[in-house]
Formats: sequence, structure tokens, C-alpha cells
Amino acid sequence: MKMGFGLCAVAVLLSCASIAYAADPNPLQDFCVALPDNKFDVFVNGKFCKDPNLVVAEDFLFQGLNIPGNTSNQLGVAVTAVNFNQLPGLNTLGVSLARLDYAPYGLNPPHTHPRATEALLLLEGALYVGFVTSNPADPNQRNKLFTKYLKAGDVFVFPQGLIHFQINVGKINAVAFAGFGSQNPGVITIANAVFESDPKINPDVLAKAFQVEKNIIDYLQAQFWPNSN
Amino acid sequence: MKMGFGLCAVAVLLSCASIAYAADPNPLQDFCVALPDNKFDVFVNGKFCKDPNLVVAEDFLFQGLNIPGNTSNQLGVAVTAVNFNQLPGLNTLGVSLARLDYAPYGLNPPHTHPRATEALLLLEGALYVGFVTSNPADPNQRNKLFTKYLKAGDVFVFPQGLIHFQINVGKINAVAFAGFGSQNPGVITIANAVFESDPKINPDVLAKAFQVEKNIIDYLQAQFWPNSN
Amino acid sequence: MKMGFGLCAVAVLLSCASIAYAADPNPLQDFCVALPDNKFDVFVNGKFCKDPNLVVAEDFLFQGLNIPGNTSNQLGVAVTAVNFNQLPGLNTLGVSLARLDYAPYGLNPPHTHPRATEALLLLEGALYVGFVTSNPADPNQRNKLFTKYLKAGDVFVFPQGLIHFQINVGKINAVAFAGFGSQNPGVITIANAVFESDPKINPDVLAKAFQVEKNIIDYLQAQFWPNSN
Amino acid sequence: MKMGFGLCAVAVLLSCASIAYAADPNPLQDFCVALPDNKFDVFVNGKFCKDPNLVVAEDFLFQGLNIPGNTSNQLGVAVTAVNFNQLPGLNTLGVSLARLDYAPYGLNPPHTHPRATEALLLLEGALYVGFVTSNPADPNQRNKLFTKYLKAGDVFVFPQGLIHFQINVGKINAVAFAGFGSQNPGVITIANAVFESDPKINPDVLAKAFQVEKNIIDYLQAQFWPNSN
Amino acid sequence: MKMGFGLCAVAVLLSCASIAYAADPNPLQDFCVALPDNKFDVFVNGKFCKDPNLVVAEDFLFQGLNIPGNTSNQLGVAVTAVNFNQLPGLNTLGVSLARLDYAPYGLNPPHTHPRATEALLLLEGALYVGFVTSNPADPNQRNKLFTKYLKAGDVFVFPQGLIHFQINVGKINAVAFAGFGSQNPGVITIANAVFESDPKINPDVLAKAFQVEKNIIDYLQAQFWPNSN
Amino acid sequence: MKMGFGLCAVAVLLSCASIAYAADPNPLQDFCVALPDNKFDVFVNGKFCKDPNLVVAEDFLFQGLNIPGNTSNQLGVAVTAVNFNQLPGLNTLGVSLARLDYAPYGLNPPHTHPRATEALLLLEGALYVGFVTSNPADPNQRNKLFTKYLKAGDVFVFPQGLIHFQINVGKINAVAFAGFGSQNPGVITIANAVFESDPKINPDVLAKAFQVEKNIIDYLQAQFWPNSN
Repeated sequence: MKMGFGLCAVAVLLSCASIAYAADPNPLQDFCVALPDNKFDVFVNGKFCKDPNLVVAEDFLFQGLNIPGNTSNQLGVAVTAVNFNQLPGLNTLGVSLARLDYAPYGLNPPHTHPRATEALLLLEGALYVGFVTSNPADPNQRNKLFTKYLKAGDVFVFPQGLIHFQINVGKINAVAFAGFGSQNPGVITIANAVFESDPKINPDVLAKAFQVEKNIIDYLQAQFWPNSN
Repeated sequence: MKMGFGLCAVAVLLSCASIAYAADPNPLQDFCVALPDNKFDVFVNGKFCKDPNLVVAEDFLFQGLNIPGNTSNQLGVAVTAVNFNQLPGLNTLGVSLARLDYAPYGLNPPHTHPRATEALLLLEGALYVGFVTSNPADPNQRNKLFTKYLKAGDVFVFPQGLIHFQINVGKINAVAFAGFGSQNPGVITIANAVFESDPKINPDVLAKAFQVEKNIIDYLQAQFWPNSN
Repeated sequence: MKMGFGLCAVAVLLSCASIAYAADPNPLQDFCVALPDNKFDVFVNGKFCKDPNLVVAEDFLFQGLNIPGNTSNQLGVAVTAVNFNQLPGLNTLGVSLARLDYAPYGLNPPHTHPRATEALLLLEGALYVGFVTSNPADPNQRNKLFTKYLKAGDVFVFPQGLIHFQINVGKINAVAFAGFGSQNPGVITIANAVFESDPKINPDVLAKAFQVEKNIIDYLQAQFWPNSN
Repeated sequence: MKMGFGLCAVAVLLSCASIAYAADPNPLQDFCVALPDNKFDVFVNGKFCKDPNLVVAEDFLFQGLNIPGNTSNQLGVAVTAVNFNQLPGLNTLGVSLARLDYAPYGLNPPHTHPRATEALLLLEGALYVGFVTSNPADPNQRNKLFTKYLKAGDVFVFPQGLIHFQINVGKINAVAFAGFGSQNPGVITIANAVFESDPKINPDVLAKAFQVEKNIIDYLQAQFWPNSN
Repeated sequence: MKMGFGLCAVAVLLSCASIAYAADPNPLQDFCVALPDNKFDVFVNGKFCKDPNLVVAEDFLFQGLNIPGNTSNQLGVAVTAVNFNQLPGLNTLGVSLARLDYAPYGLNPPHTHPRATEALLLLEGALYVGFVTSNPADPNQRNKLFTKYLKAGDVFVFPQGLIHFQINVGKINAVAFAGFGSQNPGVITIANAVFESDPKINPDVLAKAFQVEKNIIDYLQAQFWPNSN
Repeated sequence: MKMGFGLCAVAVLLSCASIAYAADPNPLQDFCVALPDNKFDVFVNGKFCKDPNLVVAEDFLFQGLNIPGNTSNQLGVAVTAVNFNQLPGLNTLGVSLARLDYAPYGLNPPHTHPRATEALLLLEGALYVGFVTSNPADPNQRNKLFTKYLKAGDVFVFPQGLIHFQINVGKINAVAFAGFGSQNPGVITIANAVFESDPKINPDVLAKAFQVEKNIIDYLQAQFWPNSN
């Protein structure tokens, strides 16, 4: 049963590969439509751009965000990103979108966007959402958790770089759209980055960090590496 | 018939007062929830912020974006903005949203967002959209118009500062959501800024600019100032 | 008479092709002198730069801004831009200039600079200038027009992205210089972008936007497309 | 034994409260020395500044970074931050420092800096360090772990927003200094933000995110809330 | 004779107090007209702004830049700055101007602008201008000097932060205008900052820095402190 | 004795070639490891980046900052920079470091960093440090000098672009580390940029700027060009 998960998790992760965020460098011309990476063996901050005289309306168009993502995975969630990787016209322009589908009980697990704030609009269903502040300056305080139950039509803000999550608490599928203040906000899913990185983080490091015996770390890592031994 | 328009236009304009965009200054703390303007007689770039120890989850929440805007106006369009004026938690965080409702034939008229790019997602209906590039460097070229017919699920990019429009070309209401790369993109509706400013722009200026007789300018201004004489 | 205008307008437009503006990305070295576009089939945000070891003093020099622009066109205005297209040493450095010449009654018609604020210094003559604010948040307000009569030695500010104009209200030629906070502020002449784009914006869209009958739009577009039918 | 940890962890967290980072807004004057927060009930992005005429050399000085931090805590690590909270002269100036002390086996556990990149210089001892990339676009890839063993004199880069850690792999204390490209990079210790937030994140959310039974989450949270039931 | 200079130098310096430059934080509203400093005992990055409802056209106007500066001082130069200190409407908008008058042989001595690039337009007369690059990476190179003789109509670029100068090499007065990519570029006149700071820099420091005997430093400092002993 | 200096000075200068600083453009991906300059005949703002799939941990590592710099030169100082030229992983990430060694009486002479603020940590020894503000707006004021005696463990801030210096006032070697808010802060050593530029600045310009006879300027330039005649 767990075996099937590895693949599902991979599927989920990759679809949410680039949901992200805020305060990109400003444009120096009307637009700078991204060229595909594989045309060059060198790179720049962002992407190289197409000859502006060859730019066409299609460069500013992405299609299919009305199609529900496939939530048949262990988390019950699908993230469809529309950033400068999918929509080349966004390059240099500092904004991107995503569609989020949640099966009942579906979870978009704790993650951060290193480069942008997210404004999430719940379109259908019911979500329980939250974010955690960064470490407080005051030693008598802990990291604060802010949470809300969202219903259709609610917008919630997840500030740049903070750990946040959404879970479907309704009995039907939930659908949300997100806007980000970067052409490429990036996403770091905490569980996967910590327990499924390639290669694995040394279990001694994680045991000490999470204040548990090493066998618990082994068990956690095994969930994300079902075929690894 | 025209008489009623003044009011409707005003209603439309004000609801779209702050739909906007891109590359705001970066935040220097987790968040900086906006305080209402009227508490002080001084202002800053953006807004003053609430004591972070008093911030609550509600500061990051906006409700009601599932409610269709009222399109019973001459343009047949309603723009519901969710920027740092409506959602104080967005202050310093570089992103905002909007909901756009279009009656059949409803038009979001040519306008610019001076401070952000817009990524528009069409949720329902059919739109014809376009934007015009800035003046070309090559004298043998004109400003280029890029257009597309959008169907549900399509995302289109309107680059920062460029004049753009959307018109409902279907027989049913159309609904779209937009993400912007600024907490306060701003909006300048061309027709209103040019022909309805207070006070009016001198008609001689406009006659020369638009290469027409002054009486045509008078007529145009009169459309937007129905009660002015 | 109108026939001649097409060409004149083109001349005017192209000379003001890149007067523009504000808060470009910061430089990461002393300078990054722009290379001509046509050396590559790829582009970047801004321009590629010359080998710094080959840079010479001439790369930082532009000549001829003492020469009055040719105002023998329908608008009676000439804009001579000095941005990173004309002066490659400005690339990455966030500033540009322009010279503006106005025949008596000459008009620099309503336009915006999408990427910078303009500070205009009137050197000779007398101008009437103005800008219009973006759409107000308060529905009981209209876009505000701020205007001033300028005499020699006056400096006036046109904030980034706002529609503004200058008209010569004296009996002699007027000359002004402008500074912009971007290497490439860009310029969008409202009348041309709206009524002369290539291809034309659908007249139905414009008729609805400007609240007039379609034949008035046809007439307006015809002014800017004198040979088009 | 575990009982003592709660306090230690708190001590560690608070001392590292504001180690963080990158691309702050630019200064608009020579300096803007931060005023203490408690003088006002309003706030700004960053901090209000002292009257420049009252600024003294002491405003640019922080003392005591030669004093080893107290590593007598469960993690065996101490982080002494020198950002705009401790050194008011750094306000608006885009840089900060930190001292890191590690007992033998001491761990600076996986954490992110939401607002800056860190350049760490190992002064004494031996560290094993690493960071994990954000979620890859390619579904056949996992988040990559980059690691190095550092000896005295080595500098290592932890890019903005990415999860990273350092552990003392020598038999003596290790000492490092870090530079950050922000006056207030911020720090999010993953284990504490996820398992010790106040209030706690719902265990069902975490069980699903980490793909384990809820009792394991309960156990993990209990490590960080030793007195909570 | 030298006695008179102290005052003149002061006069020159203060008038050029804030000629400066590049990549300021972006605006978050149409404008943010600066309030005078002395209304508050707290400060922000830039300045506080006026209530936007009270803003008038005069806030965007500066008058008198047609008036030649007084060059009756030892250097024979006058710099009239028009930045956010003189023209409050420039606050948050990232651009400023200056007028420069040079008597025959008048010198704008070596100086830097810490926060912006300068684009200088020579209006009348003849200047010899130059800037020096920052320290080269290659040890076999020295800092490079780039120079040009300018005639009326020439524009020259002085990149941000680099030491530069202009000297009148004609027989008549020269007049120039400068644009800067910041609302407050700042200016550091090398000779005054090094030899006239208050208090003086320790002469031993300067003797070693300039590789000369201390009595030469004493002599240099005495030129700038004519009454100091 | 002076003859030897030319070489030493060159050695010092080149090693401090790129110690620098603040508010670089933001990254648009996790990292963008710099490629060596000599692979291309074109350049960008910053540097081109390596294929992210070929990036290895070594790209983020610099070794040898524990090795004292060679202070056997006339100034008795050595600056070892660790910026994006030495450590390619820093490209696009907005931070850099430097090690500073001072022999007894060793001087890091007055210089500026055009692109970043410096936070200097004194590790061993005793320094006397200072910086000078930019030209004041008030004509009755001079540029202010702020100074401090530093002992081990002290951190001092040198704001972006301001002239500053450090001198060893102890009897033993002093060692310091600096953090900068830019991947490439740049450094301009005043004495060398003014008196040793290649070619030399016209002595008449410098005589007037420093208010001294030309023979003193000749003498000063000769210190930095020992073999030049």
C-alpha cells in the first residue's frame, strides 16, 4: 500500500514544482518572452528572451486551467502551476498563478515559497488553512500558528517564505486559485525536502533536529523512499 | 438613457479602483498588516502597519469573492478588487487579486495598470482580449495589438503598464480572476482619465491629440459628464 | 492636408519611441555597456554588454542634443530620446534623458511612461502641462487633473505611469529637457495606441469604451489611418 | 531528561531569532538608524529612524561577538544574531551578521532564511553542512541535497530560502561567522515551526504530510511541548 | 585670500548637497508628496507623505532653474539641486535633476554620487569631464580614467558611485543639466570629505593613505580649515 | 624605499578588487552559479550561469580564508575578497565576504564600496575606524566623521557608498571579517583612484580640487607612479 505512494508523491510534487512569488527585478522593456532552456548551454537570472519581433499572442496564453488536476494520490491534492516555465510571456513580469484541487481530506502539505507571497482564492468547497511565523525574537514566545476555515469566495494570504498548508475539510472536492508576486515563486515541500532529498539527509542529523530516536527518522525516510532497500 | 450612465460609470470605476501590479519593495519582516488611513494625518509609501503582536488571522482574510459583481451599468462589467485597501494583510507583500464579471457584451474598457502585470484566468464564458505595445523604436512600425479569444480555463498575460481590454463575446455572463504582482497595481481607465477627469482636460488639447474637430471632443466629454451643463 | 499627417505622426512617434523610466534592477558592476541588438538571436532583460576591457569613453557619450527636433508635423512637437538605445553606456544604470521641442501651439499629446517618472525642465518658452491621477478608490471622486502653466526655469514632475501632456501656450518655440528614472522608460501615446494600433482595435470595443456611436470611432481611427481604405 | 529540553530549545530559538537575508529596499539617505519598537504604536516596513542630527558613532557599533554563545542545550548550538534588532545602524542598509557556536556534535538544525542568502565562514573546528533545493520541475527528480565537510577557513553558501543545516563533526567546539544580504533575514527552524508552533498544527495534517500514523506525530510534538499535558 | 574660501566652499557644497541617484524602492501609489522633516521627531527611509487629498499641483513644481548659480567662489562652480528636498513631489518616484554653472576654469571637483548614475547634458560652453573606474580585479591594471571634451549638446554618463569631475575649458561660462536615477542621489566631494570632515581625519591616517609626509596632510587640511588655528 | 611601493600597492589593490555590497536584483531561481567570463565575448548584468543540472557542491565552496593575507606592503594591510568572482555560487544571491589582515599600524586606506554596506567584525587586535557622511544639506555643516576604537568582538557598520577606513592601533596583527549586502560591492580606494588612475587625472584639476599648488599634486601623483619618469 505504501509502495504506491512513492509514485503518487512524485506526481504531486512535480506538478507543484514551481508555484511561487515576490519582488522580482523590474522589466526593462514591454516584455521578454522566455525561450526554452534547452536551446543554450548557458543561463541567466530568469530566462533568455525571444526576439521581440517574433513574439505572437500565443506567447501570452496558457490553456487548460479549467481541467481539474488528478488528486488520485496519497495526499489527495493536485497543484497545476502557471509560471514562466509553462507560460513564457510571464518572464520578467513578476506574477504567476496556480490551480489547486483537493479531494475530500486532500492536503496541500506544509511548504514554503521562497520567492513570493501567495494570495489564495477558494472557489469551491471548504478548506482549513494556516501558516506559521518565523522564529520570534522574544524567547518566551513560540512560532505562532495563524489558521482559518475558508468557504467559497474567501481569499487568504500566505506571506513570503512562511510555512503554510491547506486541507480539504469538506465532503466534496475543493478548488482554489492562487496568485503569486513572482514569475517563479518556487516551492519547498517540507516533508519531501527533509525526508526524501536525494541523497538522504544523514539520519543522525534529523534525529537530533526532531528530538527523536534514529529509528523514527528511518521510518519517516522509508515512507518517502518505499523502494530504497 | 445616457443620463443614467454617469452614475453607473462611477460605480464601475470605483469598484475597480485598485486592481493592480509589479515589483514592489521587498518586505523586511514576516508581515506588516496595513492600518486604516484615517488614523493619521501622515502617510508612507504603502501604509503604516499594525503592532505585530496584535495581528490576528482575520487580517489575512477577505470574504465574498464568490459574489458576482453588479454588471447593471453601461459597460456591463464589474471589477471587485482585493488589494491592500481591502485586505490589509497584503501590505508589503507584493501581490493582489481581482474578480471580473462581464454581462453579455460587457466590456472592461481599455486601461493600464501602472504598477503591475496582470495574469487573467477566464473561469466561465468567452472573452476577446487584447493589449497594445508601447511606441515602437522603428518609425515604420505602429503600436502592435495582440489579441486572443479566450475560453474557460485560459490564462492571458497583460504586461505592466500596457493598454489592454476584455470584452464578453459569449451569450452568457463571463467570470474571470486576475492576479497582479503588486499589493496596489492601480488602474487607469483611458476613456475616463482622458474625457472625464476633474477638472476636464482642455478640449483644444484633446482635439489636437485625437486629430479631430473640437466639437467631437465636446461630444465625447459630454458622454462622461452628463449633468455638467 | 490630413494625408500628410500619417507620415508626420509616424515621425513624431518614432522619435519619442523610448522616452521612459523608474526603479530598474541595480547594476552588479561599474557599467555594462549595451551591445547592438542585431548581433544575437537571443535577448535578455535590458541588453547584453560589451567586454568591459573594450569599453571606451565614446560609449558614454551622445552628441547633438543641442539640435532642435523637427516640429513640422501635425502636432508641432519633436521628442529626441537619449536612452540606452541611443546611448549604450546607460545600460543597467537606471537613468535617461530627452529633449522636447514644441512649435507654437505644439502639443506633446496625452501619454504615459510605463517604467519611470519624468522630471521636465522648461528651458525656453511657455507650456501648459498636466497629469491625471489613476482611478480613485472613492466612488464619489473622478480621476483628478493637476495642471500648471510653466515658464522658463520651471521643473514639473509627471509620476510614473500617469497620463500627462504638455502644450506650447506661447508665441515662440518652447524647449524642454526631461530626466527619467529608468534606462528605458517607454512611452505610450494614448491616441495612437488606441486609434492607430496595428491591427486596429475592434471599433465596437472602442465605441462602447468611449460611449459613442461607432461612426465616431471610425472617424477617429481614420484620422490615424489616412490611407487605409 | 527531556523536560529540560523545552527551555533549552527556547533559549536556542530566541537567540537565532533573526538571522536572515536578501535584496532589501535601497536606502534613500546615508543611513536611517532604527528607533526602538516600543516608542510607537504604529510600525513601518523595517523600522522608524532616529533624527539624523542625533545619530552617534555608537549607533553603528555592536559589542561582544567574541564571546562564545552558550551551547549547553539539547542541540549543542548557539546562534548570536547581529541584525537591525541588535545593531540599529543596519536599518535600511541590507546586510547583517551572526556568530555560530557548536559544541561537539552540536547541530544547527534544518532551517530556512526567508529573506536572504547566507555566506558562512568556518573559523574553528569541522562542520558537515548541506542544503536542499526546492521542488524540481522534472517529476523524475527529487529535491537535491548538496553537502560538504568544512574545515577552518572554508566559506559555504546557503541560497535564499532553501533548507540547510550544519553539524559539528569534530571533537572540539566549532565557531563560524555568517554574513546575510538583508538587515533582517529571518529564520524558520523546521522542527520547531512544524512541531512546536503555538497553537500546535493539527496532528492529522502532519500525519498525512509526513505519511505516518498520528501517534508518531503526537510523539514528535510531545518532544517540543514537554509540559503540555 | 584663502580665508574667503572656507565660506565659498561651504556655499558650493551645500547647494550641491543632494545631487544624486539610482534604483530607489518602487512607489506603491500614484505619488507620496514629501512632508517637511521638522514636523516629526521620527523619520523613515525617504520621507513621510502628505495626505493625498490635500496634494496640489504646486507640490510637483520647482521654480528658478533658469537662474544661474553664483560661481563667485574658489572653485568657480555652482550646483543647484532639484531633488526631493527642494521638490517634494519627487518623493518615492526615483528621479531628480540639477543645474550646474561653471565660470571659466570653474571646476566641479572629483566627487561621487552614492545612490545614482548621472546623465549630464552640456547646454553651453565647453567642458572636460572624466570618471575613474573602481579598483580592477587584475593586479596588473590600475583604476582606469575615461575622459571626454564636451561641447554644447553632448550628453555624458557618470556611472553610479564612481569618482568623476567636470572642468570648464572654454572662455565663457558653461551651463549643464543633470538627470539622476534617484530622488536623492547624494554627493560626496572627495577633497572635502577627506580633508575637511568635522572632526578632521587623523593626519597619520591620511599621510599613510596618500603616501606622503604628515606636514603635507597638515597643509592640505589647512586649506579647508582656514580659521582652525 | 618608495620604489618598492608601486608593486606592493598594486598587490594590495588587486586583492581588494571586489570587496562590496547592497540591494542587488532578486534571484529568479534557487541559484545561478557564475560561469567564468572568458567563455563568451558577451556579458550580462552580473554573470551568465552554469547549467543547473551540472551544479555541484564545490560551486558553493571557497577555501583558505583562514590563511592570513600578506601585509608586507607599504600600507601593511591585506584584503582577501570572497565575492562572485572567487565564489561562483554567490552569483544572483546578494551577499559576499572578505578577510582583512592588518600589520601593526597597518591601514586600510579611505575607500568606498559603491554597491553595498559593510558590516565589519574585528576578530583579533585593535582598530581605529571611521566613516564620513555625504555632503550635508545645511551649509553651516561639514561632512561628519564618525569614529570608534574597536576591540575584539566588536562589529561596526560602514554605510553604502560612504568613505571609510580602518587602522591597526595595537601592537599585534589585527584580523577582521566583513559581510557585504551585494555579490560584488566594488571598492574605490580614494588615493589610488585620484592620484594613480591610468591615465593620470590632469594635475590642474586636482590642484584646484584640493586647493593646493600644482607641485604638491605632482608630488602626490609621483608617490603612486614611482617609475613614471
